[in-house]
Amino acid sequence: MIKVVATLISKANKVDETKAALSSLVEPTRAEEGCISYELFQQNDDPTRFVTVEEFVDDAAVDAHLGTAHIAAALAAAPEILAADPQILRYSLVK
Amino acid sequence: MIKVVATLISKANKVDETKAALSSLVEPTRAEEGCISYELFQQNDDPTRFVTVEEFVDDAAVDAHLGTAHIAAALAAAPEILAADPQILRYSLVK
Repeated sequence: MIKVVATLISKANKVDETKAALSSLVEPTRAEEGCISYELFQQNDDPTRFVTVEEFVDDAAVDAHLGTAHIAAALAAAPEILAADPQILRYSLVK
Repeated sequence: MIKVVATLISKANKVDETKAALSSLVEPTRAEEGCISYELFQQNDDPTRFVTVEEFVDDAAVDAHLGTAHIAAALAAAPEILAADPQILRYSLVK
């Protein structure tokens, strides 16, 4: 299992658009064959900061996810609404 | 429910000690009354980088967690093994 934690920081005047764009990715991602779970969160004391906490069956499933049409479209639109490049990191369970 | 994602970056020569110290927190934290889940991960392409992905029933449970003896001891020892201050952020579920 691969854990992915992605951090996405919205421009201050694009929080609603970022929230909507990220929300729109949840259902299509959960429908991917290699996706175990995918949840979107917003930081409590800084609404510009979002994380997705994700589980995929393996690295190939993460690669496939990043190559889907819905993610490609989101990444293409990201510079309009995000204050920084998305940080998408892969982790393995220690305990 | 409060989601907590904590990022902990080890000194390059303290990865084993950091992994052991963080691993030792897992069982006592899971035993806390307000803890729903607590998992420790290590980044696949940078072993100095750890995250904990946590769920607590509410903010008071997170506050209680941060006040426990096991966390206080870990935070006191952190400067010896970590390259940066722990980043402990609270999130709410969007979707």
